Amino acid sequence: MSAASHTPTRVPRRLADLDTPVTLVEVPRLAANLRRGADVADRDRLALRPHAKTHKTVEIARRQLSTGAAGLTVSKLDELDALRPAGATSYLLAYPLVSTVKTARLVELVAGTTARILAALDGPAGADALSAAATRAGITLDVLIEIDSGLGRCGVAPNVAADLAQMAASRPGLRIAGVFTHAGHAYGARDTAELARAAQQEVDAVRHAARDIRAAGTTCEVVSIGSTPTFLTRADRRGVTETRPGNYALLDRTQVALGVATLDQCALSVLCTVVSTGPGRAVVDAGSKVFGLDRGAHGVSLIDGYGEDPERGATLTWLSEEHGVVSDPSGRFAPGDRLRFVPNHACVAANLTRQLYFVDGDAVLDTVAVAAAGGGR
Amino acid sequence: MSAASHTPTRVPRRLADLDTPVTLVEVPRLAANLRRGADVADRDRLALRPHAKTHKTVEIARRQLSTGAAGLTVSKLDELDALRPAGATSYLLAYPLVSTVKTARLVELVAGTTARILAALDGPAGADALSAAATRAGITLDVLIEIDSGLGRCGVAPNVAADLAQMAASRPGLRIAGVFTHAGHAYGARDTAELARAAQQEVDAVRHAARDIRAAGTTCEVVSIGSTPTFLTRADRRGVTETRPGNYALLDRTQVALGVATLDQCALSVLCTVVSTGPGRAVVDAGSKVFGLDRGAHGVSLIDGYGEDPERGATLTWLSEEHGVVSDPSGRFAPGDRLRFVPNHACVAANLTRQLYFVDGDAVLDTVAVAAAGGGR
Repeated sequence: MSAASHTPTRVPRRLADLDTPVTLVEVPRLAANLRRGADVADRDRLALRPHAKTHKTVEIARRQLSTGAAGLTVSKLDELDALRPAGATSYLLAYPLVSTVKTARLVELVAGTTARILAALDGPAGADALSAAATRAGITLDVLIEIDSGLGRCGVAPNVAADLAQMAASRPGLRIAGVFTHAGHAYGARDTAELARAAQQEVDAVRHAARDIRAAGTTCEVVSIGSTPTFLTRADRRGVTETRPGNYALLDRTQVALGVATLDQCALSVLCTVVSTGPGRAVVDAGSKVFGLDRGAHGVSLIDGYGEDPERGATLTWLSEEHGVVSDPSGRFAPGDRLRFVPNHACVAANLTRQLYFVDGDAVLDTVAVAAAGGGR
Repeated sequence: MSAASHTPTRVPRRLADLDTPVTLVEVPRLAANLRRGADVADRDRLALRPHAKTHKTVEIARRQLSTGAAGLTVSKLDELDALRPAGATSYLLAYPLVSTVKTARLVELVAGTTARILAALDGPAGADALSAAATRAGITLDVLIEIDSGLGRCGVAPNVAADLAQMAASRPGLRIAGVFTHAGHAYGARDTAELARAAQQEVDAVRHAARDIRAAGTTCEVVSIGSTPTFLTRADRRGVTETRPGNYALLDRTQVALGVATLDQCALSVLCTVVSTGPGRAVVDAGSKVFGLDRGAHGVSLIDGYGEDPERGATLTWLSEEHGVVSDPSGRFAPGDRLRFVPNHACVAANLTRQLYFVDGDAVLDTVAVAAAGGGR
């Protein structure tokens, strides 16, 4: 039996009986987070299109769709492919495709589904590649123009969006469906005021681009923003049509550091066992291959340590691949003790495991495959 | 078709036809690295027991066994389980087991194989747990005492090893087979002299422990050391019986930074496509979910950036989950360009993908499943 197929035939029913390390999702918290997300989207009259890269699981996608989500966002074709059993009627592939092999795979997916698939581009290379694939397949692809609202990664500046939209609209096989942005620079906010500023930049950027695109005579139906910290912050979102938060479903120490969540809202955690103790330290059976080494996002360092057990007051101070070291000057922990850490970044922790264990308090309810883990194409 | 099962039915035969991101192993370099490792072990008269956590693949384990390796090292039971098809006759599980569920799984594995399995312990909790499981199963387990040679993670100080060995040897079902250590603190070395010092500490620690254990009347057959940087550095290794390098098979920027490898010896790389360009930057289609965020080991930061394409002179300056940003002030790169990065840490990059593509120059030879990826129990 390989690790890949190492699905216990009988899942233990109690937390205490689970082997470790094991990545848990506390179901009541997940449900409350999904409800909160749907309520925020409702309040701001936005369609909710959660980013599934956070969990990459069909089961959580299904719960999002039954809690107000109108569709899903994915990063990669692998994610779209793996999450199709969730049955969304609409997917946004929020990632520029520029190669023939990927655009061919996209049109194959579009042809094989009744769901609407929105593709992304941020330059002539993407327009050329998508147009060529659509033309070859004899279909029309809906595309969104990616706008840079301050992150400085992909996307064009708002003031050149209309030119790009017109150019792309002139290519055969493409229809401009709108614009989208991701205010990832919100993850660098040092306080609430900076976070609010990023949230407003996000809205302003797509509003600006949409206004120019429409003024130039191209339709712009979708005006889409998305990042969990900006989503969970108040902003004037008039003119925006949809929001794409991802992390809001699980939450983590990064969101807590940004002030948009509390530790007891974090739905994902990793149950570990102390395997060794030494002077001033306890060592648990999970390291960077379980938690990742994230200490913020996009190169920003926000957080001390790599994970935190709020009940026991324990913090992971350093990680190697399969070991996590907890500072323990007073020798509180002994081999065999179990600690349960909220990770810094739930999206990478979910990707690093093959199964999430759904729990409710001490009860283990189910195991759920991370269908698209390791699927980065 | 889910991402999990998204194995192309036909693997392209040329590098240029591969979809990206794709994690490559350059087979002639792998072969040369395995040969070099076998030669170093021969020179120092050490049994070679490579750590399979670096690649987690049956195929590379097989090549190690046919290039002088006497057995394998693994971190976790999942790895041992997944790598059994490689057919090693001996495994060292170099990780302390303290829980009933794990020791039960160990004795089940021992009972189900003719291979010798060596377990590890570094304190009374491990001795108790292993003894209980062995007794229940009616077998004798071979165990090694883990020694801390300076890393400050697991393991006991050399001068208390004999006491622990005697205590463990007195437990029913346990046989003391020897001692082992991992000089992980070598990864913090700032120069060759510091690295040489770590290599000598590693040897001294196990020699000291083995001498005391034997003096106290317990046999100590195995005296095992292991870390790639210390392995690839000259040291007086008399009295040591085996070595457990892992990374030596693939190598990476961390080993280059430590001075024990060159970039053109690094066998693992990630082929990426530029998907977007902006002022001063190019963005490629792989991020932390492909490369990891390692910049050294065990919390030590050695390296600038997250990966390097030596041919194109490109360095990844920051990563988000699915994006890698290359500083490109002169606008050398355009969407569609392909860059091939040597990662900082090959062990995590291999774990983050489900398949390694074996290549030789422009020829794609095969795909190999990372059998134990995501298997951390």
